[in-house]
Amino acid sequence: MEQVGANRCFGGWQKRYHHPSSVLGCDMHFSVYFPPQAEGSSALPVLYWLSGLTCTDENFVIKAGAQRLAAELGMIIVAPDTSPRGDGVPDAPDGAYDLGLGAGFYVNATQAPWAQHYRMYDYIVNELPTLLQANFNVSSKAAIAGHSMGGHGALVIALSNASRFSSVSAFAPIVNPMECPWGQKALGAYLGDDKTAWQDYDACHLLRQQGAFLSLPIRVDQGMADDFLDSQQLTRPLEAVSVELDYPAEFHYHPDYDHSYFFIASKIDDHLRFHAHHLGLTDAP
Amino acid sequence: MEQVGANRCFGGWQKRYHHPSSVLGCDMHFSVYFPPQAEGSSALPVLYWLSGLTCTDENFVIKAGAQRLAAELGMIIVAPDTSPRGDGVPDAPDGAYDLGLGAGFYVNATQAPWAQHYRMYDYIVNELPTLLQANFNVSSKAAIAGHSMGGHGALVIALSNASRFSSVSAFAPIVNPMECPWGQKALGAYLGDDKTAWQDYDACHLLRQQGAFLSLPIRVDQGMADDFLDSQQLTRPLEAVSVELDYPAEFHYHPDYDHSYFFIASKIDDHLRFHAHHLGLTDAP
Repeated sequence: MEQVGANRCFGGWQKRYHHPSSVLGCDMHFSVYFPPQAEGSSALPVLYWLSGLTCTDENFVIKAGAQRLAAELGMIIVAPDTSPRGDGVPDAPDGAYDLGLGAGFYVNATQAPWAQHYRMYDYIVNELPTLLQANFNVSSKAAIAGHSMGGHGALVIALSNASRFSSVSAFAPIVNPMECPWGQKALGAYLGDDKTAWQDYDACHLLRQQGAFLSLPIRVDQGMADDFLDSQQLTRPLEAVSVELDYPAEFHYHPDYDHSYFFIASKIDDHLRFHAHHLGLTDAP
Repeated sequence: MEQVGANRCFGGWQKRYHHPSSVLGCDMHFSVYFPPQAEGSSALPVLYWLSGLTCTDENFVIKAGAQRLAAELGMIIVAPDTSPRGDGVPDAPDGAYDLGLGAGFYVNATQAPWAQHYRMYDYIVNELPTLLQANFNVSSKAAIAGHSMGGHGALVIALSNASRFSSVSAFAPIVNPMECPWGQKALGAYLGDDKTAWQDYDACHLLRQQGAFLSLPIRVDQGMADDFLDSQQLTRPLEAVSVELDYPAEFHYHPDYDHSYFFIASKIDDHLRFHAHHLGLTDAP
């Protein structure tokens, strides 16, 4: 693993790393914000941030403004890339933004030509945490959050690994990929035509299946002027399942806010405080 | 003037406009953050933000995270572009990043081929404020700030128009362009070989000339790990003039911080509070 960037930021360090990924079969970048408290001897908890379509590990780092409050709370933030990258990694034949590079959907692909490299689920759930534990003073406590496709990833990963995460949050997430155009295209390509294989990556399915046994804190924020709210059925189907199950997830809707990072930046502090509370960093959310 | 973008942001609006500039002889973009207080009837003060080399009106808007505190303080932030743009606007023959497009240096050029379009000084000082007054509910109070080349622009414009600005601040500014490589290249190209014409655009010269008659509050922040600190003689020559004149400018040096927007984001709140105080928005800086 090689450090390829370091910027002093809010008294801590915004760093970037490059490493060979055996799970993905390629070299990957990821970004880490280390708050000032990371210079002490105590292990700090990690918030994983999963980004949306077309993003790399850098969009959140540059646009969300999360470092200010993370520095105050003492929270490490890890931002991985959104797909495998590099020579030999296939992309959508037509270069579409919603399949292939920048669009890994946090699944383990089973279909050609994707199966060899597109294993972002295993990368986020297993390889990356092991790499962080081996190289940094991170505690065993973790939370996970994301935006859009990354909100889908965060919800699916947390719902399937609830003992590993203190809490999960999402901005404008794809929650029901089995039933929306982005999800049907990606899951069909990566997992094939048998929709039973898609269920493991559908947050609505997972919550309905496991909600009765879970105590995972969930928070979702959604802009009401988001162009994808209706067309990709963001957020609301998960809220419907929560209501149906009487699951205590929080859903917050915001008039006029859209799908952009201006929305994320405006509300990221609420998410950091939500996670800080459940990670035990603060008393009140 | 046409609105070409609007994103809800921290309870206000981040907007972008396109307009024909008669001063520059081309169409220009600029960005404006309107805090929530702009929906009321009171006119709000404006902070002008001038960006550095290679930037457009969008870099600051996306990377600095200034909207959060501007929303709290009730301050409008206007971010213009850094040069004229478009068909017919000349660029450096070799496409250099430090001359021509993205590198207007906030001067009124007098030399061919620049003189026709490169009049960023007049654009910022006259045309843009008039446009804002005509279209928005802005008060007559204004402050100005910038980064690197934009720090130079902010200092020069405020020192030459001190009655127009309540305060000026800069991050890692070019303060003595007559004596540094970026400045000598740009001022030579835009203004010609006669260095007496350069003096009007040199903050050190202007402060030495006018400091005894000024009461303009000045704040400068400088990262100590800035790659350009020594090579472009940022900040320190102006501090030397201030000390020489016993001018009460504030200079803050920060170990480990570099020339990037991570530095600006880390310290922008200090600048907004500095300006808010001098604009009369708050009691204490």
